[in-house]
Order: sequence, then C-alpha cells, then structure tokens
Amino acid sequence: MSTLLAQLRDGLPAEAVVTDPDVMAAYAHDMAGFCPAGDSAAVVLPRTVEQVQHVMRTATALRVPVVPQGARTGLSGGANASDGCIVLSLLRMDRILEIDPVERIAVVEPGVVNARLSRAANEHGLFYPPDPSSWEECTIGGNIGTASGGLCCVKYGVTAEYVLGLEVVLADGRLMSTGRRTAKGVAGYDLTRLLVGSEGSLGIVVQATLALRPEPPAQLALAAEFPSMAAAGDAVCRIMERGHTPSLLEIMDRTTLRAVNKLTRMGLPESTEALVLAAFDTPEPAADLAAVGDLCTAAGATEVVPAEDRAESEMLLQARRMALVALEKVTGTTLIDDVCVPRGQLAPMLDGAAAIGEKYGLTVGVCAHAGDGNTHPIVCFDPKDEDEARRARESFDEIMALGIELGGTITGEHGVGVLKKEWLARELGPVALELQRGIKQVFDPHGLLNPGKIF
Amino acid sequence: MSTLLAQLRDGLPAEAVVTDPDVMAAYAHDMAGFCPAGDSAAVVLPRTVEQVQHVMRTATALRVPVVPQGARTGLSGGANASDGCIVLSLLRMDRILEIDPVERIAVVEPGVVNARLSRAANEHGLFYPPDPSSWEECTIGGNIGTASGGLCCVKYGVTAEYVLGLEVVLADGRLMSTGRRTAKGVAGYDLTRLLVGSEGSLGIVVQATLALRPEPPAQLALAAEFPSMAAAGDAVCRIMERGHTPSLLEIMDRTTLRAVNKLTRMGLPESTEALVLAAFDTPEPAADLAAVGDLCTAAGATEVVPAEDRAESEMLLQARRMALVALEKVTGTTLIDDVCVPRGQLAPMLDGAAAIGEKYGLTVGVCAHAGDGNTHPIVCFDPKDEDEARRARESFDEIMALGIELGGTITGEHGVGVLKKEWLARELGPVALELQRGIKQVFDPHGLLNPGKIF
Repeated sequence: MSTLLAQLRDGLPAEAVVTDPDVMAAYAHDMAGFCPAGDSAAVVLPRTVEQVQHVMRTATALRVPVVPQGARTGLSGGANASDGCIVLSLLRMDRILEIDPVERIAVVEPGVVNARLSRAANEHGLFYPPDPSSWEECTIGGNIGTASGGLCCVKYGVTAEYVLGLEVVLADGRLMSTGRRTAKGVAGYDLTRLLVGSEGSLGIVVQATLALRPEPPAQLALAAEFPSMAAAGDAVCRIMERGHTPSLLEIMDRTTLRAVNKLTRMGLPESTEALVLAAFDTPEPAADLAAVGDLCTAAGATEVVPAEDRAESEMLLQARRMALVALEKVTGTTLIDDVCVPRGQLAPMLDGAAAIGEKYGLTVGVCAHAGDGNTHPIVCFDPKDEDEARRARESFDEIMALGIELGGTITGEHGVGVLKKEWLARELGPVALELQRGIKQVFDPHGLLNPGKIF
Repeated sequence: MSTLLAQLRDGLPAEAVVTDPDVMAAYAHDMAGFCPAGDSAAVVLPRTVEQVQHVMRTATALRVPVVPQGARTGLSGGANASDGCIVLSLLRMDRILEIDPVERIAVVEPGVVNARLSRAANEHGLFYPPDPSSWEECTIGGNIGTASGGLCCVKYGVTAEYVLGLEVVLADGRLMSTGRRTAKGVAGYDLTRLLVGSEGSLGIVVQATLALRPEPPAQLALAAEFPSMAAAGDAVCRIMERGHTPSLLEIMDRTTLRAVNKLTRMGLPESTEALVLAAFDTPEPAADLAAVGDLCTAAGATEVVPAEDRAESEMLLQARRMALVALEKVTGTTLIDDVCVPRGQLAPMLDGAAAIGEKYGLTVGVCAHAGDGNTHPIVCFDPKDEDEARRARESFDEIMALGIELGGTITGEHGVGVLKKEWLARELGPVALELQRGIKQVFDPHGLLNPGKIF
C-alpha cells in the first residue's frame, strides 16, 4: 500500500492525497441505500488534467481500482468506494472555463456545481436546462456520469442532450478528446454519448463542452387535484396528446402530499388522491395553463388552481422538490426507485407501486416526472428493523419488475450503479449485455475503472 | 460464389436475391463523387427481420462482406459496393408500424422514406423534424446510418436526437434491442446513439423507435441581402447571440444564387454577395422576423425582404433546396463538402472556400446551414477533364483542412464513408481512433460490415 501512496504523491501536491480515515469514510458512498461501500486506500483530489493522468498511470501500473466521484449525491451507489481503491474526487477541478453566447456553449471542468453553471449562464442570457433535485450540490461531472435528468426533462431533455464534447483521461492515463464545439458533427462513432451515463466506468471526464439555450421566460404553474391516479394519468396523456409542451408536468400522490405538508406546513390538499403540477415557460403561459386546466377538468379534476404569480408558482415547484426529503422524515430512510414507463402506463405504474407498498406493509410515496413517464416511487423504511429493510428491498425490486412489465426501463435518470446492476441484465438481455461488456473491455482492459458498478 | 448464392437463396424468396449485372450496377454506389465502387456478388432485398438474420448468418459463415443500403442518396460513398460483397438493400422493409400521439413516437422499418414518415406524422398532428435535402427519397435507415441533418437543425437538431431505440441484426445474425420507447432511460451504455451515424459498420438497423414532436405552425421566412460574407456572418452571430431560435437560418453566396436563377428563373438578387434566409415557426413569426430583420440591417444588410405569406416563404426555401441541383448544372458534376465550424468562423470559412475555388480555377458555390455553422461549399468540375478533377479533389481537401483549422469538423451531417476516411484520423487523433476501431472489433470481429468505410 505504501508503494501506492508514494507513487501517487510523486505527481500530486501533498494536500491532494488524503488518507485520514474519517475523511476517507466521508468519501466512501453516495446517497443510495442498500449499497455496500468498501474502504479506499486513499482519496485523491487533483486540480489539473495532468494530475488526473498521473493518478490513472499510477493506478494502471499498480493495478489499483479507481472510483471517480462528483458530489456523491447519486442515488444508485455508483460512486461508492471499493476495498483498496483510489477514490478520485473531481471536486477541486471546478472552473468554468468559458461561456460563449454566440456559439451557445459552456466549457467547464467536471467539479463545477450544476447551480453555479446555471447562474453563470443566466448572466449571459443563457440557460443550462438539466436540473436534478440536487442541483445546488451535484456536479456537472457527476451529471454526465449518471446522465442526470430533473424536472425540466419533459421539455428540455436530459444531460446527454447538452454534452457536445469531452476531454477524457483513459484508464492508462492517456488523454482523449471526443465530440466538438460546433453545433453539429458526425465524424466517427459518437464516443461522447457513449461516455455520458457510463458512470465513470470508461474514463475520467476532465472537461466538458456543453450546449446552452436562450433563457426562457420564468415559468408559471398550476395545480390540479384528482380523485384517482387513473384520472391524473389520463390528464397527462391528454395534455401530451394535444401537443402541449409544458416546461414541467409532475404528479404527487396523497402520501407524498401529507409528508410534504408535515415537513413544510405548506397546506397542500390532503384529501386528493393525486396532484398534478403543470408549468409553462412560454411567452403566454396563462393561455397555455388555461388550456391545460380545461384538459384536467375534462379528465376528472375536482379542482384546478392556477398560480397567481411567479412566487406562487415557485412555491408549488418547491413542494415537489421537497418530496424526497419529506418522505425521508417518515421513517428515517428511503429507497427511491426511478422507473420510466410509457406515459399511457403511468397510472398502472403508480397505483401498482402504492399497492406493492401496502402488500409489504410499508409506506410508499409516489411522485413522478409525469410528462416523460419517469416515476419515483419512494419506499420508506427503518433500516434498523431488519425485517422492514428486507421488505423494503423486496418491494423496491417488485416495483422495477412492474416497470419492465409495463414496457418501461429500470432507470430513467439515476443510473444503475450498484443498486440495480442485477436488473440491468434483465432489461438489456444477453446480447446487448455482451456488447456492453465488450466496450468496457476496449476502454478499460484491466477493469480498473469503477469496478463492480453497472455490470 | 455459387455456394454463396445457394445459401442466400436457401432462406430468402427467389425475387429477394438479384444477380442481374445491370441491376447490381444500379445498386453499386450512392451520390458521392470520387468514391470507388466495386462489383457485388449479389443484391439482396429482404422483407423481414428473419431474412436479414439469414443474410448475416450466411455472410458470417462464408466470411463475405455486407454493404447495407438505403436509397443511396448519401454523399460520402458510405453505401458503395465493394468487390464480392452482398449489397443488403433495406428498401423493401418499408412499413410504418406505429404512430402514437400520447407517447409521441413512431416505430418504423428502415426502408420508410423520410417524407412518407413526415406526412404520416402530420396526419396525427405530429412532426418528424429531420429533413435532409433528399427527404423525398432518402430512407430512415439511411438517415440513421449517416446521422443526417437538414434545414431544420438550427432549431430541431439532427436525426440522432430523434432515435430512441433500435432493433439491430448483428454481424453474426443475432438480434439485439437497444434503447427504449419511453421518453427517458439510462440503463447501461447508450448503444442506440453509438449505432446512429455508424454507417452500417456495427450492425443492420431493422427497426427504429423515433421521437416525434407536436407539429409547429408553418414557417414564415425573410431574405436579407449583404454586401459581403463577413457582414452576413456577423448577422448570423447577432441573431444567435440575441437568443433567437429560427427554424431555419441559411446563407447562399452569389455563385449559388446565379446558378439557382439560371435553373429556376426565380429572380433571386444576383448583385448581392450573400443572401441570408431566416424563418420562424413560432406563434408570432412576423414579430420574430421583424426583430431579426433589424439585426440584419444593423449588421449591414442592404435589403431585408420579409415574405408576404407562406407561399412566398416556401419559394425562398425552395431556392435554397435547389442549390445543389443548380450547381450540378454548371459543369455536370459537383463535390459537396460538409464542414461544420463555430458560428463565429462562418465568414472566414465561406470566404476561404470561395478563395480556394479561385486558386484552383474552379467554380465553388457556397451555401450553409448558417445557424448551426454547417457549411456546404460545392466544388463544380467536369469529371471528364482529368486535370480539373484533380484540382477539384485538391480544393475539396483544402476546404476540409481550413475547416479543421477554424475549429470545425470535416462532417456536420453527411458522414465519413469513403470520401473522408483519410481525414477522420486527422480530426480524431490516434487515441480516439484506436478506441473507435476497438468498438468496431467488438461488434464485427470478422470485419464484414461495410468494410473500408469510415476508417
């Protein structure tokens, strides 16, 4: 082990190599439950591309696994340390190198926090759409690793759609450029897109060129109450079928509304089975909201309440953003699922998840980025109660099985990590899995990059 | 050879295996100049997935190369036959299997013609944006193979952004599914995106799930005349910098305008150095056009002419669509380049391309999807004049070199094929090239899929 530390320190400033056990423990895992984390040999915090190359050269020379990390806000254990590994934290590579309003691009290092980039883009009249719930903490590098989504995806898509080019340090320390800084480009296979969502298993992203958009008007929202999930799901389908493009289209069930009320005293309606939130960032949002409100009423909404102003809109969105934290307070711990289904299957998926919770005697709060079919059933449990923990894991798996059965995917935006790797094979099938493993082998022949994740 | 034909016929209907030399000659090449084409052993035209699997199993068993083809409207020789190969034409797999307005997807076979899908989507109030100039002939399979663009890309992006999932027959005949039919999904590496633009070198796409959008209002256009390419390029930068999102933003130079006039008698202005066309498909296009017109005037436009109505708009766009055909009439043959540069480099790129033409004593017409920096310098030459053909090839290469020098890519939307494969290495560099070849090896260990293309 001392050989490893000595060689790491040979190309890194002293403060970049951390071996304090308490600090290492803090870097051992992300925010996912049920995911084992090992004891790393060291945490390294490089500031330059050359330092990352040194780390990877050392790792390859000594055959030591490397676990790349952003802010560890991930929800699948993808950033968890393994025994004896180097934890490679990119947090200190946090410079915004360029924002160009003519090309509509930003060039950033991986440790830049999502919210910081968003605000910097705003200063130029530009907009970086991807907005995971953890946007005030999570990093662009982590977003790229997990192909993160957020509330905006129904209109603006996921992180992958904003990554134009990457600088990547390979397992053996070589530096590779992918993609471009032009708006278009089809020269060769799309390695950029291959790397997005690869959870650090193919290379270390050390720089990214991102597409920005013109900043839209602030969004205006409405809330609609439904007597059943079936009616709420029907409303979502009607909204999308009629050609509306809301900037946000969410569903929360009663369990979630109660939990949010308990935490925030927001006074959300607790007598409703499902609350739909819709928002538009168009030039005339009130007109769009009126049309959507009518569709909600036609689908059976008992109440449609448009926000009076931006402030009231923001409060509604805040309620949605608090859902996970609020449900965590119910029993202390949650397991958040991330099943994405066709929009037409939203109601069976969400009703099914709640029913699975009942079957196992657990609280399952259900919310969803309904506009894109990405549901987040949240299983609440007490981790100290062994039987409850077992039931939580079983219900979590049963929810994924239901998602696949309904034509969906096990992960819409959180990634596979450790949490769902047994499920990946089931979704992909043996042929695609074999090819994915083949690609991994091309990039990382010694299997050093984030081993034990995804596959 | 007779073994090959016998084995092919063993799993295919008689009419699906063509060995008539005249027919085979017609299937030998796409629309690119300067690209060698060989003599195939047979042209096969399967109608089912099982038949494609049979072709690939036979090819693998006998180690015969396979060249997949759509409508052969490609411009890089990517569909050209090689000696002794099986030409695998997907033209007869042309069913639109599903259009779903709630999920906003279409499921199609590869031989569906782009315009047919576009019209079918329109019937459901939906819109399939990618619109290559050849959209009335080219197929979705070909569009996926080359990651085609079109006039719409400045607002709607390229084909890649509309491919959600694929069914693919691998080199050995196995069938693989990639991607999803949900709006989001991050389960494993993005093989869908890897296959898009891979020019048939990784597998045979036999079915695609495509994203559709709500149909926008018909677009309204304006034309602005500029005294120099520099002023026109400046106008494009100002338009993008101010946050406008036109549905089309094109530039044509005087050479192109003259050629189009000669062909169509459209009466486009021939005294101007550069004509900019801008269009909006927003709810209030006239207001957007007025703002863009002001920016053009500020950048030095001598004349700004908004179209009076949709019909006049359509005529302007038609002028742009005729550019390649019109320039072909100049000398009989053209070589069309496809260099995409940062928007800020449009004027140096376009002026530079014209200057290269002058240097080599050739007509080079210049047009560009200016909004996304994708330029199409079109080198006109007489292929029967050996010296002129040599000068055409040299000027074509010099244009690509200029594009790379200006921070661009050798191909924005036409692909690499045979025409640019020597240039790919130059753009990618040795490390990325090695990984791309490694991926090819994983998918196609015997090198049977479209050999000699891309690399």
